[in-house]
Amino acid sequence: MTEELLTSDVRTAPPQEADLTGIRDRIDGELRGFLDAKRRSLLDPIDAQLGSAIHLLEELAGAGGKRLRPLLCYCGWMAAGGVGDDVPVLKAAASLELFHMFALIHDDVMDASDSRRGRPTVHRRLAKGTGPNTSGGGRPERLRGDDADRLANNCAILVGDLALVWSDELIHASGLGSTRLRNARPLLDAMRTELMLGQYLDVRAACDLDVGVDMALAIARHKSGRYTIERPLQIGAALAGAGKDVLRACSDFALPVGEAFQLRDDLLGVFGDPSVTGKSSLDDLRDGKATTVIALALKQADASQRKTLTGLFGNPELDDSGAAQVRELLVATRAVETVEQMIRERWRRGMRALERIPFQDPGRGALRVLAVAATERHA
Amino acid sequence: MTEELLTSDVRTAPPQEADLTGIRDRIDGELRGFLDAKRRSLLDPIDAQLGSAIHLLEELAGAGGKRLRPLLCYCGWMAAGGVGDDVPVLKAAASLELFHMFALIHDDVMDASDSRRGRPTVHRRLAKGTGPNTSGGGRPERLRGDDADRLANNCAILVGDLALVWSDELIHASGLGSTRLRNARPLLDAMRTELMLGQYLDVRAACDLDVGVDMALAIARHKSGRYTIERPLQIGAALAGAGKDVLRACSDFALPVGEAFQLRDDLLGVFGDPSVTGKSSLDDLRDGKATTVIALALKQADASQRKTLTGLFGNPELDDSGAAQVRELLVATRAVETVEQMIRERWRRGMRALERIPFQDPGRGALRVLAVAATERHA
Repeated sequence: MTEELLTSDVRTAPPQEADLTGIRDRIDGELRGFLDAKRRSLLDPIDAQLGSAIHLLEELAGAGGKRLRPLLCYCGWMAAGGVGDDVPVLKAAASLELFHMFALIHDDVMDASDSRRGRPTVHRRLAKGTGPNTSGGGRPERLRGDDADRLANNCAILVGDLALVWSDELIHASGLGSTRLRNARPLLDAMRTELMLGQYLDVRAACDLDVGVDMALAIARHKSGRYTIERPLQIGAALAGAGKDVLRACSDFALPVGEAFQLRDDLLGVFGDPSVTGKSSLDDLRDGKATTVIALALKQADASQRKTLTGLFGNPELDDSGAAQVRELLVATRAVETVEQMIRERWRRGMRALERIPFQDPGRGALRVLAVAATERHA
Repeated sequence: MTEELLTSDVRTAPPQEADLTGIRDRIDGELRGFLDAKRRSLLDPIDAQLGSAIHLLEELAGAGGKRLRPLLCYCGWMAAGGVGDDVPVLKAAASLELFHMFALIHDDVMDASDSRRGRPTVHRRLAKGTGPNTSGGGRPERLRGDDADRLANNCAILVGDLALVWSDELIHASGLGSTRLRNARPLLDAMRTELMLGQYLDVRAACDLDVGVDMALAIARHKSGRYTIERPLQIGAALAGAGKDVLRACSDFALPVGEAFQLRDDLLGVFGDPSVTGKSSLDDLRDGKATTVIALALKQADASQRKTLTGLFGNPELDDSGAAQVRELLVATRAVETVEQMIRERWRRGMRALERIPFQDPGRGALRVLAVAATERHA
């Protein structure tokens, strides 16, 4: 599969998507292998208690997801001229996915989300007691209602913490040499801090109607521009030995594409089909998530539209008809139209930048495909 | 201060405590320096939002604490013959404290604890809105009651996540060479997983009266034997180049002392003076934390005592008079006496093992002092 990727020319040969699927499968294989090894390392009955945490991580990994971050990492490595044994790079890419699973699990606890990738979120699985319990004990009988929910949230926080700690272990045990690891480490550290900052801004912006378009875009830049696109790509490129100039050029491509990704995500959060996105289309509205499209709608609304919007947005009881009203207003205020324009504009800027990076095909072509997938997606 | 430590003989010279204080101050200096540098790296108004998270971490670090883990790490390095520039070791030790701060912050969110080190916990500080807000915005006006608490918990989870991620950054930027880092890395990874397991067992054991003495002790072993004593000591020794035999001998000392530490912690959680421990003496009882002393009391209670205990234990409304009743029962069932015996027995076992490790003074003497501090403490 890699051989094929390294010799085919994406501008003429069509099977670019098939190649990405192959890489994705190999990354998933490394992730499964790591979790398998973890399970095999649980030797005594006490350690075996972690079996249920591993099972929940395996379920989340197996439930789909775009694998955008690990694929960008791997394709960045390819594009920057990475050659030789690619298994350590696949493991590094898989470790980004494990880190992302930490982010998703904590995000779902914080947002009290019920579904993710079309299945109950980790804390909901734990609350329903449907997660396997290797101790055979099940959850304590005395716990009911709020207490059981708190216990489930607590366990989910710990499962997330475990994913974070293990993501580190996976990259350290990847077989990458000290020099390559040292090149990638500052980027990895930056990525982690940037995600935390993005989440921190996001949480604090919840229910804050005065967040404004600038702040909403800044959140998008941190949460997605940097965390989702720029850093995974740079990490991959750094693993192939890319220097500062190339890493800087990566940013010119990644930041606009990342913003476009987040803007698409915001639209899908409200307009997406839950059966395709795997997430509720009410959560973001009920949470009062101050996204760019909402900030724009409030900015562009007349007094009466604004009043209706502020009444519905962030209302935890919001129902389907209320959500439909919000959607109508987002269209009526032309907020959706503006966001679609912003996505196109950023996409074009990113594509122009991609051509200027001294990257090689087929890696460059794969990055183009990933950028389309990130911004034109339905889930 | 280090010079003094390296030349004095602890068996004859009295200022052992003063030396540990000096090392502690230097470790704290590295921690403060790291957080300072983080603050200085917040260049734009968006990044500056992390200022409040940094401030909360600085407050927690400045509010006291035993620094047991970093001190064990440093003294392990000394005892195993570590020589030369000790600044990288101080940074590694400080990174263990930053990791511990992550553990404390998440633990307090999970336990819904109000105080830590005599001050409001991070999530309580955030809920009260008394934390500084570098954006000048304060928390959103629309949030009240439950929503404000949820927001505060979410921010606290993220502040904890940040401490975890930064603890990694601190050790990677410590200046330790690749070889020393590679020696310590598996121990660091093991320590992190063991803490998660201990917490996971702990959370799942909450309100479970049938947890039993064996499981309670197993939790103690993971949470404290391994996480608090064994791994920090081994990490320090590994940084001085200790081989497998020495690392194994470390365990013979550390595991019993660690269990004794946790048993003392359990007693202090119920009998401790909140003005000294900095924690409520009701929280553990209200949470129904299934500790060894509780498991023993239930095992050794007669039918009527058991009935009273099960009625009070884990009751979220438990008041001071109820807590006093529980304390009386823990004494009457001789559970406290048994636990004190267990502490003494483990302490003696640990001390015998310490003498067998090929360690050097003054490191060995310092470890003896730390072991006393860990098991005979009042806070």
